[in-house]
Amino acid sequence: MRAESFIVDTDVHNAIGKLKDLLPYLPKVWHQQWLESGIGVHGQYYSPVGVLRQDAVPDGGGVPGSDPRFVLKHYMEPNGIDYAILTGGGEQGISLHADPDYANAVASAFNDWLADNWLGVSPKFKGSIQINHSDPAAAAKEIDRMGQHPAMVQVVMGSGARMPYGNRFYHPIYEAAERNGLPVAIHPGTEGKGIAGAPTPSGYPTRYMEWHNILPANFMTHINSLVCEGVFEKYPKLKLVSIEGGIAWLPHLMWRMDKNYKALRDSTPWLKRLPSEYIVDHVRVTTQPIEEPAKPEHLLQIFQMMHADKIAMFSSDYPHWDFDNPKVVLNGLPRELKRRILGLNAAELYGFPMLDEQKEAELA
Amino acid sequence: MRAESFIVDTDVHNAIGKLKDLLPYLPKVWHQQWLESGIGVHGQYYSPVGVLRQDAVPDGGGVPGSDPRFVLKHYMEPNGIDYAILTGGGEQGISLHADPDYANAVASAFNDWLADNWLGVSPKFKGSIQINHSDPAAAAKEIDRMGQHPAMVQVVMGSGARMPYGNRFYHPIYEAAERNGLPVAIHPGTEGKGIAGAPTPSGYPTRYMEWHNILPANFMTHINSLVCEGVFEKYPKLKLVSIEGGIAWLPHLMWRMDKNYKALRDSTPWLKRLPSEYIVDHVRVTTQPIEEPAKPEHLLQIFQMMHADKIAMFSSDYPHWDFDNPKVVLNGLPRELKRRILGLNAAELYGFPMLDEQKEAELA
Repeated sequence: MRAESFIVDTDVHNAIGKLKDLLPYLPKVWHQQWLESGIGVHGQYYSPVGVLRQDAVPDGGGVPGSDPRFVLKHYMEPNGIDYAILTGGGEQGISLHADPDYANAVASAFNDWLADNWLGVSPKFKGSIQINHSDPAAAAKEIDRMGQHPAMVQVVMGSGARMPYGNRFYHPIYEAAERNGLPVAIHPGTEGKGIAGAPTPSGYPTRYMEWHNILPANFMTHINSLVCEGVFEKYPKLKLVSIEGGIAWLPHLMWRMDKNYKALRDSTPWLKRLPSEYIVDHVRVTTQPIEEPAKPEHLLQIFQMMHADKIAMFSSDYPHWDFDNPKVVLNGLPRELKRRILGLNAAELYGFPMLDEQKEAELA
Repeated sequence: MRAESFIVDTDVHNAIGKLKDLLPYLPKVWHQQWLESGIGVHGQYYSPVGVLRQDAVPDGGGVPGSDPRFVLKHYMEPNGIDYAILTGGGEQGISLHADPDYANAVASAFNDWLADNWLGVSPKFKGSIQINHSDPAAAAKEIDRMGQHPAMVQVVMGSGARMPYGNRFYHPIYEAAERNGLPVAIHPGTEGKGIAGAPTPSGYPTRYMEWHNILPANFMTHINSLVCEGVFEKYPKLKLVSIEGGIAWLPHLMWRMDKNYKALRDSTPWLKRLPSEYIVDHVRVTTQPIEEPAKPEHLLQIFQMMHADKIAMFSSDYPHWDFDNPKVVLNGLPRELKRRILGLNAAELYGFPMLDEQKEAELA
């Protein structure tokens, strides 16, 4: 009789009310990570030093980088920055959302928000058009819509993706970018997130440092793919900007591609030149986080190998933790090379007016 | 009434009896690939020039590299090779089979076959122990079993894997290798095959050249992981040999790891030195396919950046298509550096007796 009313529910969910309730049970070394990221398998790679400069909080409080006037005052004016290409604060991750309609809507919202809140504050601010790269047809429409804005100077995509960026799946994006005269930039940080592949060809690193060290592998992947798939033959005016993906690996990639091309070019009949020639003509590489060899002349040698006088462009990554200071980061380079990297290469790429005469005179 | 006996079978398999039956329907440019690889999603990346030197077929016919006496006569004797580390012909792929029991048995069979058919032919041949890296406990037993053979000088694993090689999953392999005094080598070619991850962080390249260009990304992944996970602190006598994975990217990886370590070392408390110091002490890198910059001095600069005098070792990749000729590949290097790379670094690593006095005298 009693068996008829005997019930076992084999799945009832209890909850940890507040994250801090777990602290008495967790070794102290993990407390900060638990409080800031919890189970954390979405963000996954947790930086022990955070990802934002703690001295970059705006005067009125809030997130570093969230107040355009403070960015002008705190970073750009003291450092004499003439133009700043705004790349956002991780918005590229929206492309890795499983729902393309949500992602398309949020990408458009980012762009309208940027135009409303930043691009009118100062002519020094130049914008990057956020897209959902996982829906190339919709991304092309967004590029056409925002490409008309005079202060939008490029398209930006996260480097985390399901396919290498030369794949024909993505070509509508490049067609739209070329049509609008806009370079396409790629930016790291989304590797291994959402619907992207694992951050390495052999799956998942364990911690933030290991993950951060290997981010350049994905930039090599995309540049190799864009060249091999003939994207720069198909869209001859297209430029690709590799942001924050490292620089010193570029000579190796160019040499390896050129060597293999000589034996294997049957499989890429659309290529008419050495792969490295496409890279020098079509790829631009930003400097931060700049490599710091023990012997500074090694960096100069790398710059010469990669034709940095044509393709390297300064970036600071402000206000992120691994910010490169424009006043010291290129010290020791020959003067003309330094000037090309600090501003002239970017001015040519984006079509910015040169320095005014007074500033020229001061620098001379 | 008729409806009762009316039958539609919605899945009946017809077959293309011979591969060549499809040729009349296929553009000619694809004929060779179709005949040699068919649908080919297992091998997937099809080299238009094949992967074997056509002049390396043994006198009696058969697969290049399948006759030890012909290898001695065709390659080693004319080139004055004192020792050859045999790495096999793709056997490492067995680790990516879904069935670990089959893979363990086949790996053991490879080793016994090598001992029976090659290692007794000449004292110049030295063997690599094949393992199933996806079953580390079984791999450790195989290392203990074959590590007793005096001509087995290292363990070899394919670079294609489900997890980066520093992951604690693999540590029993390193414990066994250290116990037996054997370096662990990794060799490319299995990227994207079997149960391995995709060949890039952004999925699958389209063709062989694109795939081959980006193979080094996986070597960076494994070396970064082995250092960051503290494998060389846990197994201080362990050496890692990076075979055929490229060399010129190594300075970049060392510099990036060192820079990040300074900010992020809280997350790798087991590391007591700069990451690059572990690489110089524990990693050895083989030269083929050597990078060929337009300016030869660039390769010398790279060698100096990466401490090639300590860590680079010559390899030819005989009898593969992209073979490097020992008589020309290191020409132009300073004499002492060339000698270290051609033989002395390997002799120190593997404990080989040095050159005999007569050959020394001839070289002097």
